[in-house]
Amino acid sequence: MKHVTRIQDLGPEGVEAVLSQAAAWKLKDPGHIFPGKLLGMVFFNPSLRTRTSFEAVMLRAGGHAIVLDVGSGVWKLEDRPGAVMNADRAEHIKEASPVLSRFVDMLGIRTFSQGGGDEEDEADPVINAFRKWATVPVVSMESAREHPCQGLADALTLRETFGTTKKLPVTLTWAPHIKPLPKAVPNSFLLSAAAAGCEVRVAHPPGFDLHPAVRAEAEAYAKATGGSITYTHDQDEALVGSRAVYAKSWGPTAQTASTPTDVAALLASYSGWMPTRRHMGKAAKDAAFLHCLPVRRNVEVADEVLDHASSRVVDEAGNRYHVQRALLAWMRGG
Amino acid sequence: MKHVTRIQDLGPEGVEAVLSQAAAWKLKDPGHIFPGKLLGMVFFNPSLRTRTSFEAVMLRAGGHAIVLDVGSGVWKLEDRPGAVMNADRAEHIKEASPVLSRFVDMLGIRTFSQGGGDEEDEADPVINAFRKWATVPVVSMESAREHPCQGLADALTLRETFGTTKKLPVTLTWAPHIKPLPKAVPNSFLLSAAAAGCEVRVAHPPGFDLHPAVRAEAEAYAKATGGSITYTHDQDEALVGSRAVYAKSWGPTAQTASTPTDVAALLASYSGWMPTRRHMGKAAKDAAFLHCLPVRRNVEVADEVLDHASSRVVDEAGNRYHVQRALLAWMRGG
Amino acid sequence: MKHVTRIQDLGPEGVEAVLSQAAAWKLKDPGHIFPGKLLGMVFFNPSLRTRTSFEAVMLRAGGHAIVLDVGSGVWKLEDRPGAVMNADRAEHIKEASPVLSRFVDMLGIRTFSQGGGDEEDEADPVINAFRKWATVPVVSMESAREHPCQGLADALTLRETFGTTKKLPVTLTWAPHIKPLPKAVPNSFLLSAAAAGCEVRVAHPPGFDLHPAVRAEAEAYAKATGGSITYTHDQDEALVGSRAVYAKSWGPTAQTASTPTDVAALLASYSGWMPTRRHMGKAAKDAAFLHCLPVRRNVEVADEVLDHASSRVVDEAGNRYHVQRALLAWMRGG
Repeated sequence: MKHVTRIQDLGPEGVEAVLSQAAAWKLKDPGHIFPGKLLGMVFFNPSLRTRTSFEAVMLRAGGHAIVLDVGSGVWKLEDRPGAVMNADRAEHIKEASPVLSRFVDMLGIRTFSQGGGDEEDEADPVINAFRKWATVPVVSMESAREHPCQGLADALTLRETFGTTKKLPVTLTWAPHIKPLPKAVPNSFLLSAAAAGCEVRVAHPPGFDLHPAVRAEAEAYAKATGGSITYTHDQDEALVGSRAVYAKSWGPTAQTASTPTDVAALLASYSGWMPTRRHMGKAAKDAAFLHCLPVRRNVEVADEVLDHASSRVVDEAGNRYHVQRALLAWMRGG
Repeated sequence: MKHVTRIQDLGPEGVEAVLSQAAAWKLKDPGHIFPGKLLGMVFFNPSLRTRTSFEAVMLRAGGHAIVLDVGSGVWKLEDRPGAVMNADRAEHIKEASPVLSRFVDMLGIRTFSQGGGDEEDEADPVINAFRKWATVPVVSMESAREHPCQGLADALTLRETFGTTKKLPVTLTWAPHIKPLPKAVPNSFLLSAAAAGCEVRVAHPPGFDLHPAVRAEAEAYAKATGGSITYTHDQDEALVGSRAVYAKSWGPTAQTASTPTDVAALLASYSGWMPTRRHMGKAAKDAAFLHCLPVRRNVEVADEVLDHASSRVVDEAGNRYHVQRALLAWMRGG
Repeated sequence: MKHVTRIQDLGPEGVEAVLSQAAAWKLKDPGHIFPGKLLGMVFFNPSLRTRTSFEAVMLRAGGHAIVLDVGSGVWKLEDRPGAVMNADRAEHIKEASPVLSRFVDMLGIRTFSQGGGDEEDEADPVINAFRKWATVPVVSMESAREHPCQGLADALTLRETFGTTKKLPVTLTWAPHIKPLPKAVPNSFLLSAAAAGCEVRVAHPPGFDLHPAVRAEAEAYAKATGGSITYTHDQDEALVGSRAVYAKSWGPTAQTASTPTDVAALLASYSGWMPTRRHMGKAAKDAAFLHCLPVRRNVEVADEVLDHASSRVVDEAGNRYHVQRALLAWMRGG
């Protein structure tokens, strides 16, 4: 049984297989490839693109999605082994996951970082509890550590735009925000781009380092695929000659800023990192702009970048549909 | 591409076409007319009839609906061009609308008045932003200015009850409520009834005027269809000889009452406007009673009116299904 | 038209018919037995198993479910005849139920106890209002008095585990909790087990009596089926030689404890009632453990019981699917 809750579940070969299938099926609709199949979608956090695109995948493939909003329509779930459940979590994933597995053919889980810090995010306890106790394949719809479907959609967009991702110079640049965001999306772009063989440049202010385990994993993919990864605190340097600029905000490490006031001050001090046309001017002439969405216009990215012809953000979001269809087929061994 | 977010998108001819089709298909089910088609339904506000009836239309026609509750299950959306998005609206409709358009074949939007006043309601910014940026047809499930599907269901109910709507005397009467309500429903009844050729009498207390632009539009429809529209502050006068009594509450104009206390006092002072059998006794002997639902019994309308054989409110709600099926077909050029 | 909102709607013969059908179809999938049929599911309270299992039943049988979360996505509903609706309940079930009946082929309703006390729970006003005004069959997804689908799933699990339920010694034991819970589940286990001919032993602390009307109804079923029912305050005594231990918490009677402080103190004083392996050791060697889920681990039931091979809780939850499919078919006369 194949779970996919992290890029590691695919590896560079799986990433290549999914991207190729997604590209092929985007040109020629495979029709009802999941006839009568049910995907149970459990949302601990809200969603627009993910929910709609997964449900559309299932419906257009002849299957169905059952959507569960945990914490709004449903009670909160416990993931800790041995917990004495005397607080607000009314059900353990040890029951919820196998029970849901009885009713559906696949489980999709969305569960953001619970704010317990970098090591808890790395351990990713909620989605791993579902994975451990499920008796059907589990797919991530974004968890604390990764958002693999986003990473795959990003890579497909690069591939479509430039023909190949091999040795493609791409820049992942930190961007400002009103609050510290999880690192699942930058982690997934880094891992997917490395697995796809890109020359990845990562630019962020000091103190916003990605987790060492994620960086080590990306490094291993780059080695295997002929890609490379460099890190810098100099945004302009990272942009020079780049073919794709991927902007995303994320929060500082715990050592960098520990109080909300410190974090807010830190974020405010880097408002100059918001991509504008000036920034895009440093990159290659044909450079594409990418962002996972949702984007806070004129805070995270300037209107002039998002509204420019080089922005691929809507196509990138549309590719969520295509990579997810191919990914579910890959998980089902198709 | 045909959007329908206001009666103006149909005009009297479109209204006639949709009502005829709805009536015909009510007698003879057309079967799977939307095979495999997906309707994305975005709710900024709650819904019972609208959600269920649209989803039933899609499912019984061989398609599907994907339901998104924005603000509960999903984040809040921004509609203002050039906004610096540093507050609670995490995504711009400029992204959300084209992205959703990638996943579905039609978009339904429900977005009530945001309480910004009569001119903002007339401008209807949220649904117009969706309409502007969508790449698939957009249908209104009620917005600040209009609720066209309700107006069409009202007109179909009149047509079924009396054979024709041409020169049919009908009364739209204001009714009491515990709070000021939006004007989308009275606007839509007025516009639909005028487009269907009725002799419309509108009765409301002083200071509850409908927007001049809506009244002018209704007047133009009446001219084109041989109908007529009159306004009065005398409820009894408006009821005499009327064949249908349509009760609905709405709020006063900004000039009439600007503070919540003023509005509450004003609403309380008109509790005598609640339709009772005494009121129905003024109308024609065979007069039908209509209301869009939900209705606050014994506040907005008396039990004795709602429970009387002349009440058509459940049939009227049931007609939402029939007009929506015909409307979506009309939008798709069928 | 057959409604099923209580075991009484089935009676012992109906229970037997549904269990037999469920067992048969569990071995051999009947396929698309509800082609194109729509089940409208109205949730006044959250759900995980119920929602997923009913939706899965409809989808796998060729139909669909339309899910309405009342009070979150939809407004609150009024059930009282003659109410002056000037508070937070914006729509009467007298309208909502017949209107929803226009759009769907069956209605499922979940509405927990409203906390109005034992007699209000016995009267079960909300689901009975839906039942009264619906023009399509209504099925309970748990109401104040009963949770018949849970009771049927419990009985099917006993039948599968032991071959027959006739004269099977089973124990319904009260269990601790952090708050007083409704009695719908213990009521339904008692009624279903009695209707299935079990020898039921009910153990609970003093002051936690089930309603006299429920006990009288169960007694009548036991008489008809050759079963029996005994009540005790001695948990150990009730366990001796029992083949199945069904643990469930519920609140005290109003006479026993009327203030939240009294109730909390009372619940805390009975923490020793939490089933452990010591308790299971009193029962028969092959005794099965059952619980309706969700369960608060190490508060209501010890990990060592839930994680033991004798626990059937996941199978029991999985049986919700099977009994519900058979029940809907029975209601439709199939």
